Amino acid sequence: MSIDEAIRTFDRKHEEYERDLLEFLRFATISRDSERAGDMRACAEWVRNQLAGAGLQAEVVETGGHPAVFADTGPVAGSKTPTLLVYGHYDVQPVGDETLWKSPPFEPTVRDGAIFARGSADDKGQVMVHIAAMRALHDAGLPFPVRLKFLIEGEEEIGSRHLAPYLRQNWDKLACDHVLISDTSKHSADTPSLTQATRGIIGKVVTVHGPDHDLHSGVFGGTVANPANILARIIASFHDEQNRVTIPGFYDDVRMPTDEERRALAETDLSDEELIKATGSPGPHGEAGFTTAERRGTRPTLDVNGLQCGSSATIVPSQATAYITMRLVPDQDPAKIIAAFDQAVRAACPPTVRVSISSSQGSRAYVAPLDLPVMKVARRAMEEVYGRPPVIVREGGTLPILPLFKEVLGADSVMMGFADPNCNLHSPNEFFHLRDFQLGVRCVLRFLGLLGQPAS
Amino acid sequence: MSIDEAIRTFDRKHEEYERDLLEFLRFATISRDSERAGDMRACAEWVRNQLAGAGLQAEVVETGGHPAVFADTGPVAGSKTPTLLVYGHYDVQPVGDETLWKSPPFEPTVRDGAIFARGSADDKGQVMVHIAAMRALHDAGLPFPVRLKFLIEGEEEIGSRHLAPYLRQNWDKLACDHVLISDTSKHSADTPSLTQATRGIIGKVVTVHGPDHDLHSGVFGGTVANPANILARIIASFHDEQNRVTIPGFYDDVRMPTDEERRALAETDLSDEELIKATGSPGPHGEAGFTTAERRGTRPTLDVNGLQCGSSATIVPSQATAYITMRLVPDQDPAKIIAAFDQAVRAACPPTVRVSISSSQGSRAYVAPLDLPVMKVARRAMEEVYGRPPVIVREGGTLPILPLFKEVLGADSVMMGFADPNCNLHSPNEFFHLRDFQLGVRCVLRFLGLLGQPAS
Repeated sequence: MSIDEAIRTFDRKHEEYERDLLEFLRFATISRDSERAGDMRACAEWVRNQLAGAGLQAEVVETGGHPAVFADTGPVAGSKTPTLLVYGHYDVQPVGDETLWKSPPFEPTVRDGAIFARGSADDKGQVMVHIAAMRALHDAGLPFPVRLKFLIEGEEEIGSRHLAPYLRQNWDKLACDHVLISDTSKHSADTPSLTQATRGIIGKVVTVHGPDHDLHSGVFGGTVANPANILARIIASFHDEQNRVTIPGFYDDVRMPTDEERRALAETDLSDEELIKATGSPGPHGEAGFTTAERRGTRPTLDVNGLQCGSSATIVPSQATAYITMRLVPDQDPAKIIAAFDQAVRAACPPTVRVSISSSQGSRAYVAPLDLPVMKVARRAMEEVYGRPPVIVREGGTLPILPLFKEVLGADSVMMGFADPNCNLHSPNEFFHLRDFQLGVRCVLRFLGLLGQPAS
Repeated sequence: MSIDEAIRTFDRKHEEYERDLLEFLRFATISRDSERAGDMRACAEWVRNQLAGAGLQAEVVETGGHPAVFADTGPVAGSKTPTLLVYGHYDVQPVGDETLWKSPPFEPTVRDGAIFARGSADDKGQVMVHIAAMRALHDAGLPFPVRLKFLIEGEEEIGSRHLAPYLRQNWDKLACDHVLISDTSKHSADTPSLTQATRGIIGKVVTVHGPDHDLHSGVFGGTVANPANILARIIASFHDEQNRVTIPGFYDDVRMPTDEERRALAETDLSDEELIKATGSPGPHGEAGFTTAERRGTRPTLDVNGLQCGSSATIVPSQATAYITMRLVPDQDPAKIIAAFDQAVRAACPPTVRVSISSSQGSRAYVAPLDLPVMKVARRAMEEVYGRPPVIVREGGTLPILPLFKEVLGADSVMMGFADPNCNLHSPNEFFHLRDFQLGVRCVLRFLGLLGQPAS
């Protein structure tokens, strides 16, 4: 069988698939908006039909929230090739201020070779890359080179809260060797990327309680503990002069990047000028001894996201609150870090205040082994299509599904990003280049073709 | 001349004066409310008429804001007695939630021997104490024992902002030996108080600026300085383990209380239980080596009043702001402390953020020399009327007019408080006991009588 034949079929039929992508983008699938339940289900059915039309066994499945779509090519005859689970999502972010959109967010419009619509890059366009690859194979009359399953959910933008129980209940149905995800972006307009790692996360809310009501700062200032001053002291105690986190045990389980990983990271590093340009900060600031890419990709952090306390009135405020997130790296254990954090806060608190601490459920970091054979195949496929090898990216952000797939299905994830790095993700005028769609489909087909070959 | 005669006249006529006080309280003189300008002026004219009716030369004077009332008995024949300037205010605080008032705030109502109305204690009732003393002398046909001037302003509750220029322009007209103020409260229901000192104040707003927009805390956390974490570090640096302020030079000019002053303060000290009851704080907390009364009355403070930054979203916030006030004691110089504070903030700021600092105009602390003859006379008058000597109070709060009178007129202030300590100041159901009104007038008459006698 020849993947080239599927690529030729795609080249002949891509306009049909692109028209279908426009149809996909017309569903206003804002998962956060409870009034969109009808659009959500209609869209899930549309996705099911697309996959069924490509020759897969496809069904809309109930999760307890917005439905998901599951599809399966079934076993591939007489082969020892791996089984892939393609994960993606059909829900989208809210549109924000609609007056900032040059064309309506749910009326996809092609301008300058790009489709502008909410969800065009995140993630419908990239889901369509995989559907189109299936259809090209099917329309070319070719067998699937490997067994493929699809799980396209409708709650990614609202935290995938029904996904974990669904996975745990359906682990046998979803069983696979690897997960394939296209929900990230290229490293630059010309350079593809393969995302190797994401950080974990823990959210904490710390409130220091002092007097039971706001006090006149003249009458009582200096005689009772001021919750804002104490909170500042607690927060300040979290970092030392090297900008290292001081919580006992915080770094105990942190896996140091290998020399090879550090070399790979150096490729994605930002110069000081680039960091200043991207953030508007006066300069880089982080843990001593690490580059910006290493700080982002391999080092845990503790950041205050917000502070809430009192006012400009001359009071001793009754309480002060900090919203804090920690980003975790392999192999930190969220439960262990939560316990260490709570203990450090209580230790830093004098007996003249009370403190309350709450946590969001933590999520682990994820890192795929770079030397996994499937990663090498993915790199080779990308290099063949883009004319250059992908940059290996360690994201600073968090994708809770990755450690979940690893835990429940035992599968590592291959994250191929096809969208433009400046595609206005979560912002007005989100777009997906038609050329990126087309290269994406070729890349997926090439990848499947290589995986379907007997091991070289 | 016999002050007893004036007291007898007061006893005979007090109901008439009290009816006039109710009239005084019917003016809705909320200085903050620009729609009340008419009420303000009508009330000023009413005060002028009262003082004119007591035999003083009285006029409504323009200040650039709400008018004030100035009055003068004129020179007292053939005597070397001191001249007193009675200061008070006819404006009141807003009423707050009117549904919490048991009777309407501007329909004064007598219940259980007390007048309930906004301004009854702060400060119309106490201004009326002085007016009634004048009227009793006048109605008794007695000469004024000392020369008295009155300055009753209409902007105390909004910061007296037109008072400083008025004083500076009219220093010769206002010339006096001492200022007499009744705008505080008794120490307890049975114990009068003489307020000896108030603290000064400086307000600061410190904003730490990092990135020029909120950043994704996954993508950029750990690579740029987080303004909230830096702000916390700055605030934490302000105090040491002894809860002393660490700003270089902060204590340089602080006058230590004398042993006598410490003994006097001990009388007004709060037990830990009393402090806990009053504040709801778990316990006292302040500078090591000082009692609660000493911390409040004699030690400078640095309190965060409010914090404003980011939200609960997972961001590195672009900026973080702290509202801070310092309370000053004699002989700290606001300008010097502002400079030291600003320098300490800048020194604590890494170059990876920018900081902006603004200040309110500072106000000095005030302390009256306890051994001033006029103070001794005030104590004697109070003891005669209340049957016990007054408690000498050092307030933690700030009255900017006190250092202003000292600076412009060279006059110390005698602060006799007649209101109940629980009189719902600035709150719903503010009240002034009729008995406190009556004792107040006696006390003022006794005081004037003693001052008018040849030195003993």
